[in-house]
Amino acid sequence: MYPVPEFRTSNRILMGPGPSNVNPRVLKAMSTPLVGHLDPQFLSIMEDVKAMAQATFQTVNELTFIVSAPGSAGMETALVNILEPGDEALVCINGVFGNRMAEIANRCGANVKRVEASWGEPIDPAQVNDMLGKSNPKIVAIVHAETSTGVMQPLVEISQMTHDAGALLVVDAVTSYCGSPLPIDDWEIDVVYSGTQKCLSAPPGLSPVSFNDRAVEVLEKRKTKVQSWFLDLNLVREYWFGAKRVYHHTAPVSSIFALHEAYRIVLEEGLENRYKRHIQNHKLLLTGLESMGFEFLVNKSYRLPMLNAVRTPHGINDSEVRSRLLNEYNIEIGAGLGQFAGNVWRIGLMGESSTADHVYLLLSALKDILK
Amino acid sequence: MYPVPEFRTSNRILMGPGPSNVNPRVLKAMSTPLVGHLDPQFLSIMEDVKAMAQATFQTVNELTFIVSAPGSAGMETALVNILEPGDEALVCINGVFGNRMAEIANRCGANVKRVEASWGEPIDPAQVNDMLGKSNPKIVAIVHAETSTGVMQPLVEISQMTHDAGALLVVDAVTSYCGSPLPIDDWEIDVVYSGTQKCLSAPPGLSPVSFNDRAVEVLEKRKTKVQSWFLDLNLVREYWFGAKRVYHHTAPVSSIFALHEAYRIVLEEGLENRYKRHIQNHKLLLTGLESMGFEFLVNKSYRLPMLNAVRTPHGINDSEVRSRLLNEYNIEIGAGLGQFAGNVWRIGLMGESSTADHVYLLLSALKDILK
Repeated sequence: MYPVPEFRTSNRILMGPGPSNVNPRVLKAMSTPLVGHLDPQFLSIMEDVKAMAQATFQTVNELTFIVSAPGSAGMETALVNILEPGDEALVCINGVFGNRMAEIANRCGANVKRVEASWGEPIDPAQVNDMLGKSNPKIVAIVHAETSTGVMQPLVEISQMTHDAGALLVVDAVTSYCGSPLPIDDWEIDVVYSGTQKCLSAPPGLSPVSFNDRAVEVLEKRKTKVQSWFLDLNLVREYWFGAKRVYHHTAPVSSIFALHEAYRIVLEEGLENRYKRHIQNHKLLLTGLESMGFEFLVNKSYRLPMLNAVRTPHGINDSEVRSRLLNEYNIEIGAGLGQFAGNVWRIGLMGESSTADHVYLLLSALKDILK
Repeated sequence: MYPVPEFRTSNRILMGPGPSNVNPRVLKAMSTPLVGHLDPQFLSIMEDVKAMAQATFQTVNELTFIVSAPGSAGMETALVNILEPGDEALVCINGVFGNRMAEIANRCGANVKRVEASWGEPIDPAQVNDMLGKSNPKIVAIVHAETSTGVMQPLVEISQMTHDAGALLVVDAVTSYCGSPLPIDDWEIDVVYSGTQKCLSAPPGLSPVSFNDRAVEVLEKRKTKVQSWFLDLNLVREYWFGAKRVYHHTAPVSSIFALHEAYRIVLEEGLENRYKRHIQNHKLLLTGLESMGFEFLVNKSYRLPMLNAVRTPHGINDSEVRSRLLNEYNIEIGAGLGQFAGNVWRIGLMGESSTADHVYLLLSALKDILK
């Protein structure tokens, strides 16, 4: 094997379910020579990042910061810190990520109840209400933007029900964050987590999270220790928020540099403009694909603008077309997951990847391949 | 707060307990435009990284790969995958990181037994043997290079005892990896984890780990699920090793790019040369500091070459001197942790930071400040 040569990559256009393309400014920021994780210069960068995380979640929650691991670890952070063995958790499932929440809640020792909808459909609030009447959950957990199906979940009604029942609302916003409205204070979301590699367009590996005061109170009143030491917010927050900045783990300095610049770009564009751009490019893609005969999986009312799930045309070889897109056009689109493997494509228009150019290029390439 | 300005950092010389300085080649590799985490080009980079992880751990263990989170998550990976509730764990403690292993083992529901030594001393194998006679642990957990004290722990004798007692040896090699000999197959280490930001000189945020066949058998014969979904190797290894590369979480693509180049640099230098360089620069620092009247904390036989713990001179203000080093000379050194806070400095000479230039610069700066 030796010597291993320098790696070579092609200049990919990332139109899958993430990572999305990253602005050169972000790559440049990431390649800044390192400073220590307790250096006052780095602590000041963390302060900026926390403030920009609050701004993008549209929250005043103090406990808003960045978990040093990808979105799945953000999901685990949300659940292990709130749930204790024996707690009841109501998990809404209409795709891969709802299932994952249920699996993690189960590993926390929680008694998991499920509200399910078909893949490609949103969760029905009436069913959530029904289950809330029949149970006494500590949390209701739900996915805002189901990346496996392309469904956008309305949250306001479910949030109200959850609080009426005295439970906390835990929301997976990995794919919606910075691409669609997510005013977590207005919507009274108690715990939210996301990832950096979707509409925020920073490299994968970090997870922005936010806990409101109700959630912090639950965290502080735990009777048992959080089962994960690495994700235990009682410890992590001493580093991110404590006056003494007590060492917990070595922060991923370069990734935080990248995130700082990615946040600046989001806020320069403005959240409203960014949301609008995601819808505009979604519409462009929709029109183009429908004119070619493609069928969208999700009903118009619940479609994600940043993750377009379309049925693969009859008689074509799913993986062959995706391979040709990648190898001949440098375009990555996503395969179907779970029950959609082989019959659905997931076309991402996230963050930096959400441009009219990319849409036109993909449409041309598909026309060429499928002609 | 808006607009948040671009961040500014100084060109730090990192001589603390990590992160160490990073070679510009690594920063350049990290800033390569992203490819997808399931792109064949990325999978090929992962193959290289696995092979280079094996080469640097000097192992043929198949389950040798990179956890997508910092060294502390590597520690948690090692323990949560092997331990089940009710298992006995013998943890050796002579500093912060032994304590951390005990804390995590405890959160796994293990019955934790301790063998302790004073901070600054190695663990006595006779005491380990004694405890092995009085208990029946599933693992013996021990730190190879205790970053909080600067002690190098001899492992061969303890490894033999551990296996004679039918237990697995779990080793924390965060600070020694790529800086001191760590032939994990020769030493029969069953589970090892490290970090990227010490002698490997990649940015912090990843954790190389290796499990041998004995450890994999234990993993496969578990009766309970691993309590962390994110760190569950039964799932993670399907992505890193499975023929189908089943999606688990989105890999930190850019950090893996950086690691690939950092590994290439390690192997170009050669492990033996690298170990020698760490000793040479340690000796240079030792001679210089002793001639200034500094006293090393650890007995000569057990001193780490990459992390030099020295007592702070009487009558000086610890934090003031460290601040002056940072602000006037751009040099970061580490403060004492735990019982050593305020009276010990930890001077790192790790990876790219281990150069004669850095030693001379630090000695001059200290002479200047302390004159």
